[in-house]
Amino acid sequence: MIYFDNSATTKPYKEVLDSFVTVSSDFFGNPSSLHSMGGQAEKLLSQAREQVAKLLKVKPTEIYFTSGGTESNNIAIKGAALLNRNKGRHLITTSVEHASVMSAMEQLEQEGFDITYLPVDENGRVRVEDVEKAIRKDTIFISVMQVNNEVGTVQPIKEIGEMVKKYPKILFHTDTVQGIGKVPLSLQKSNVDLCSLSAHKFHGLKGTGALFIREGARLAPLFSGGNQERKMRSGTENVAGAVAMAKALRMTMVKSETGIARMKKIQSMLRTALNEIEGIKIHTPIENSAPHIVNFSLSGMKSEVVIHALEQEGVFVSTTSACSSKKKFPSKTLLAMGVPESLAESAIRISLSFENIEEEAKTAIVKIKKTANQFRKVMD
Amino acid sequence: MIYFDNSATTKPYKEVLDSFVTVSSDFFGNPSSLHSMGGQAEKLLSQAREQVAKLLKVKPTEIYFTSGGTESNNIAIKGAALLNRNKGRHLITTSVEHASVMSAMEQLEQEGFDITYLPVDENGRVRVEDVEKAIRKDTIFISVMQVNNEVGTVQPIKEIGEMVKKYPKILFHTDTVQGIGKVPLSLQKSNVDLCSLSAHKFHGLKGTGALFIREGARLAPLFSGGNQERKMRSGTENVAGAVAMAKALRMTMVKSETGIARMKKIQSMLRTALNEIEGIKIHTPIENSAPHIVNFSLSGMKSEVVIHALEQEGVFVSTTSACSSKKKFPSKTLLAMGVPESLAESAIRISLSFENIEEEAKTAIVKIKKTANQFRKVMD
Ligand SMILES: Cc1ncc(COP(=O)(O)O)c(C=O)c1O
Ligand SMILES: Cc1ncc(COP(=O)(O)O)c(C=O)c1O
Repeated sequence: MIYFDNSATTKPYKEVLDSFVTVSSDFFGNPSSLHSMGGQAEKLLSQAREQVAKLLKVKPTEIYFTSGGTESNNIAIKGAALLNRNKGRHLITTSVEHASVMSAMEQLEQEGFDITYLPVDENGRVRVEDVEKAIRKDTIFISVMQVNNEVGTVQPIKEIGEMVKKYPKILFHTDTVQGIGKVPLSLQKSNVDLCSLSAHKFHGLKGTGALFIREGARLAPLFSGGNQERKMRSGTENVAGAVAMAKALRMTMVKSETGIARMKKIQSMLRTALNEIEGIKIHTPIENSAPHIVNFSLSGMKSEVVIHALEQEGVFVSTTSACSSKKKFPSKTLLAMGVPESLAESAIRISLSFENIEEEAKTAIVKIKKTANQFRKVMD
Repeated sequence: MIYFDNSATTKPYKEVLDSFVTVSSDFFGNPSSLHSMGGQAEKLLSQAREQVAKLLKVKPTEIYFTSGGTESNNIAIKGAALLNRNKGRHLITTSVEHASVMSAMEQLEQEGFDITYLPVDENGRVRVEDVEKAIRKDTIFISVMQVNNEVGTVQPIKEIGEMVKKYPKILFHTDTVQGIGKVPLSLQKSNVDLCSLSAHKFHGLKGTGALFIREGARLAPLFSGGNQERKMRSGTENVAGAVAMAKALRMTMVKSETGIARMKKIQSMLRTALNEIEGIKIHTPIENSAPHIVNFSLSGMKSEVVIHALEQEGVFVSTTSACSSKKKFPSKTLLAMGVPESLAESAIRISLSFENIEEEAKTAIVKIKKTANQFRKVMD
């Protein structure tokens, strides 16, 4: 079996699961309890927070554990809008964000906020000038994802961050769910105020994530209650989940350099081989793209059909993003890039993890070519 | 070690952790993925939902998986208020709810909603007449917890539910985080529209919970995004967590009858023995109380000091609720019951699980008596 759907989710590292089990069974106390079992749990949680902070080169007090990328994005966007609405009601984002950013923005629109959805170029990239031009007196928030989950385009986060510096009223949020560990990002140098992470995209566990909130940035919480996570995210802490996430992030960062190099090699093998197929169009740009995604269309062949055919051959890929794959609409990102609807309906996403090897890519190429040929014959 | 702080959190059952590990490593697909690994994950999630629904005697489509009790309470309260605000802006609750209900209500107050916090009697119980008297033309929501987490009082949920039937505009929510499996509750007969659960209180995992939403009841989601959980709770599903929660709930329900009987026996042993201590006041009522909590004060002895002394003897208990234990205020529940502040500052909570045995209670009694005597001598 060749699992090439790592942007949907990854297999947790064994060490990550082991940590989860150890903490869950041996240190199960509630961090808020006054006795030593509470103290131990609290200490483990602090250590996890310190580790994540260190890996992201920020302060431990700037890391908040959440239940995943969707929660982090929702807290960042809704929390900032709610708390800062007296300063202004205009937010800026792009037309290629993940559903959790898009829908949060749409919900705010219904609450009377004004949202600008910026267009992207044919590579799926937003222009820094466009972001700046969209800024108004009442702009309070800008959200631009670091790496697009459908085609892998890397956005100019550093450039946007530098530009936003001139507008101290604006909070700058980036979703690094797809990018973390695979595309370098300095939260400091990019002047990022808020950043969302999801552990299950880097061999951590589903249901765990984090939000970086720069010191001084203020948000309203979505969950109120016992005031855990410095009042930003109430609820008994998932200590084992946080420890497991810190472990997954550390392993990811340790593997990062060689992992990225291997991904790049596999990506270029895939590109070269795929380009030999008749009627193929590769959507993932060559410049400014993440190393783990290759999105392409086999013209005239519906995505679902190709996916199921490839599965028969033991290769697991996806249409676009997992969470929109069951809706019958073509990828919003591809349409925003100007890809015609008919071609967008044939989109296939291959997404790698650090655990994939070249051999798998070679086999996958054979299977993809075989499948494409079979379909072409039927169609001819 | 005698762990008597099960209302703060419980140790996960081995079988629960085993299920989590198996699903996380062998069925790690994203339920939204179109291929068979997605399909397998989706099937496991559906099965978990069916199991939970069956155990609660409701429909699978009425069960929504969340990250815990705090999230469930926040979705229920804020989600209902947000969606139904055009029908009215008045909500009713009690003065002894968990912080996650209390703070959610307070946040709504700041948003222009009007909240009635009902008083309780000396046993911590709200009167059904008081609930009905508080209902106004613009009342849209009533939230009353099933079992109080600090003293164990059981509220008249069935009676309130029957009364609320006359007011079809009102959604009735109950927090059964402390009660589930330990105090019988029929969601049908009690006419409950919304009900919150948290798995880590019944030997499940932290970071997992559920919300029952009766068919037809409408809420606005707190997380928007990929529209998982029938649009009520977006975000990649924590499939392994849901399966583990279903397992924990099933084990709890299977053990329920003998477990409750054993708890009652231990509780009455504790009551009898504690009553022999000079200057003791037991706050947990005899009637209408859950079998797993005994809350008492040793007058003149500060809770924290007693807790640490008992820990030296290997007995783990708590002050009041875990999440307010680090704040230096006396229990709101005890104050609402009319307990004087000085006595409330001495409150100790023993909370049992189905895994505690009589022997532990016997040992604990010896230790508590010893500790009380030592302090009494110092104070005399
Ligand atoms: C770019 C991006 N943002 C956010 C998310 C949501 O993260 P999660 O699945 O942890 O809710 C995903 C994946 O689903 C994603 O690819
Ligand atoms: C009555 C009650 N409701 C809600 C909660 C919150 O649940 P969780 O810890 O899963 O957020 C708790 C425990 O903390 C509780 O005792």
